[in-house]
Amino acid sequence: MSARAGIIVTGTEVLSGRITDKNGPWVSARLLELGVDVAHITICGDRPDDLTAQLDFLTAQGVDLIVTTGGLGPTADDLTVAVVADFAGLALHADPALEARIGERVRDWQKRSGAVSDEAATRAGIHKQALVPEGAQPIPPVGTAPGVAIGAGARDGRVPAILILPGPPRELQGMWRDALAFPAVVDALSGRGDYRQETIRAYGLREAELAATLRDAQNSVDVFDDLEITTCMRGGEVEIVTRFETAAQPAYSELSDVLRAAHGRQIFSTDGSTLGDLVAGALTGRRIATAESCTGGLVAARLTDRAGSSAYVMGGVVSYANDVKTGLLDVPAEMIAEHGAVSEPVAAAMADGALRRLDTDTAVSTTGIAGPDGGSPEKPVGTVCFGIAVAGRPTATFTRRFPGDRTTVRALATTAALHLLLDALS
Amino acid sequence: MSARAGIIVTGTEVLSGRITDKNGPWVSARLLELGVDVAHITICGDRPDDLTAQLDFLTAQGVDLIVTTGGLGPTADDLTVAVVADFAGLALHADPALEARIGERVRDWQKRSGAVSDEAATRAGIHKQALVPEGAQPIPPVGTAPGVAIGAGARDGRVPAILILPGPPRELQGMWRDALAFPAVVDALSGRGDYRQETIRAYGLREAELAATLRDAQNSVDVFDDLEITTCMRGGEVEIVTRFETAAQPAYSELSDVLRAAHGRQIFSTDGSTLGDLVAGALTGRRIATAESCTGGLVAARLTDRAGSSAYVMGGVVSYANDVKTGLLDVPAEMIAEHGAVSEPVAAAMADGALRRLDTDTAVSTTGIAGPDGGSPEKPVGTVCFGIAVAGRPTATFTRRFPGDRTTVRALATTAALHLLLDALS
Repeated sequence: MSARAGIIVTGTEVLSGRITDKNGPWVSARLLELGVDVAHITICGDRPDDLTAQLDFLTAQGVDLIVTTGGLGPTADDLTVAVVADFAGLALHADPALEARIGERVRDWQKRSGAVSDEAATRAGIHKQALVPEGAQPIPPVGTAPGVAIGAGARDGRVPAILILPGPPRELQGMWRDALAFPAVVDALSGRGDYRQETIRAYGLREAELAATLRDAQNSVDVFDDLEITTCMRGGEVEIVTRFETAAQPAYSELSDVLRAAHGRQIFSTDGSTLGDLVAGALTGRRIATAESCTGGLVAARLTDRAGSSAYVMGGVVSYANDVKTGLLDVPAEMIAEHGAVSEPVAAAMADGALRRLDTDTAVSTTGIAGPDGGSPEKPVGTVCFGIAVAGRPTATFTRRFPGDRTTVRALATTAALHLLLDALS
Repeated sequence: MSARAGIIVTGTEVLSGRITDKNGPWVSARLLELGVDVAHITICGDRPDDLTAQLDFLTAQGVDLIVTTGGLGPTADDLTVAVVADFAGLALHADPALEARIGERVRDWQKRSGAVSDEAATRAGIHKQALVPEGAQPIPPVGTAPGVAIGAGARDGRVPAILILPGPPRELQGMWRDALAFPAVVDALSGRGDYRQETIRAYGLREAELAATLRDAQNSVDVFDDLEITTCMRGGEVEIVTRFETAAQPAYSELSDVLRAAHGRQIFSTDGSTLGDLVAGALTGRRIATAESCTGGLVAARLTDRAGSSAYVMGGVVSYANDVKTGLLDVPAEMIAEHGAVSEPVAAAMADGALRRLDTDTAVSTTGIAGPDGGSPEKPVGTVCFGIAVAGRPTATFTRRFPGDRTTVRALATTAALHLLLDALS
């Protein structure tokens, strides 16, 4: 049996849907990588009773480790340490060394920012952040909030190990490696299994087709039930993630063969690499430009979100208005008048114009109708034309029709542009 | 007392952190708007026992309504309806009318997509999706999966009302309005209070300064405790959301006055409008162009994510390479050599060039070091220069230094660009 964990995400801003939680998914993915089985993620607001109820729930579920995120700031609504201590029946005491360390960081920040703060309130905040439950270990802060590691065994052995981490993702992630080394955490995770996780990614594959293949595999693959398979559709891509104990590797190899035989044309990655990884690899040694209409800069933003992308991304033009298509990309005004801005000839001319104007050997263009207005019977909302220009080859064009609202159409078109680019370069 | 709700998000892909859940936050925000108090969001994988445990937990917490999302597809890992029915002690039966309706949609999709599917498997999938717990109401599908509304009272009155919704956000959101009209849901929410929620947004305000103001307000504002205040830092903005019963309006007005007196300069919205709303308003009747280096298209993408933005966004240039700054934006190569690409003179020249080349009356530019490489002692990673050009005025420039990794710097710089633009236009 693998070690089991539960994650509690605190914060009214997360519970109320005003911000998207990044910590639950991040911690969960890290624990899974370690071979820990994550059973539950729960989200609660800044209310002591609700947090206590969730601690109680996860304890009753028999998890080996509870990880909490958030609620470690100096303000009154930050109450995680106090509530956890109360739940575990541990008194809080101030840690003078920790208090001095947090004090230094706060003073330093005040000096740099020039903020004028009430001295008594600042001292109270620092003191509060330096409170540690009896027998627990503080984890050195990345920002001003330290984490806390509590060993299993409180309340006559009923309470599992609890790892308390701060809410800002940068602080939490910066503390993670340190946190894993604390004995409380090491002991809790000692029962973890020797698991592997493999990912296959496909584009243009319907979930229903995949489901049919998996049903067949259930009969053909030996010990299929040793594989925990989840499939997920995202942005037009299907991700097939399989988790298994190392001993089940032969079963996974069989499954992988079945999937490749059935959907080899749509599968673009079997080693965990993402579309971004593959596009970056294909562009190495090349120079690319973008010419975007409906995607409005999203293709350029995706290409440049990788460190080091300035080696191959020269830049691009967002030609939202027809005048800009003509003025900066040399698309003939008559061509736009004849075929419409959303047409394959215009997509080709945009890509060619970007290639020439930005002096590159590769260019990708998009022009489409993101909606909600602007559709017609022949070119409904969701219609997007693409152009792929590669020096020394005829420019290729494509038309796709995407479902969904404006945001969805723009996102699907961006992903499609990168897949068309990848296909052209491989 | 307000009606209370809990939300269960199902799906191993969400629990494992591979995809970001959009449904929990969306349903939570909608319920809060209705005056319903959301106590817990829980996330579980596609395992019957874990889902049952969460249903049990929320029931024990005494919520009036449980909303589940996901797990309604035709495949074997989609098990929400069966698990909920078992939990509530209700037998499942097939609904022939529903089965016919789902069948039509599936056949229609098969025809359009040309997919070849195993007939028996397809029929089994349709039959599965048409199973409804005894006494429950199916909610018409938006995709192929119907929702289900179960009235409170199962298992001798112990089980609250349960609303089962599909996982794809488009289907869930498309079903929401219908779902709210079902008697099971209407009855569960009948106890909801008459709540208001107000939002104040500020930019450039430190959370610690705000915390000090709120501590003061605690003494000065009458019946301060009737206000449920949460503050949240996001992308350099602070959002102060206050929820209160209608009767506490005077207390909220007092709080709002205190905040305006202390942070009037940083507060940019008190009526719920977002930066995007305000920028769109300020650009009405104008024509804008972007010139981006480090943000790589994100500013253009943010400006064009709104329907109707083509009325004022002409387009932009992503000038990642210096040659593109010179070739498409007329930034003198000598200026780049003298001041560096990340400098206020270059930011000004980029904005001016975009204004001229795209024939607009407004332009915004960014040039900076997103990292992880490229920093220097004088211009460390995170340094970003901005230019704001408005026809008939001298072009203004600004330099900011942002913390965090590449993604964070790019996001903070994009938000900063829009705030500088808004300031210039108001």
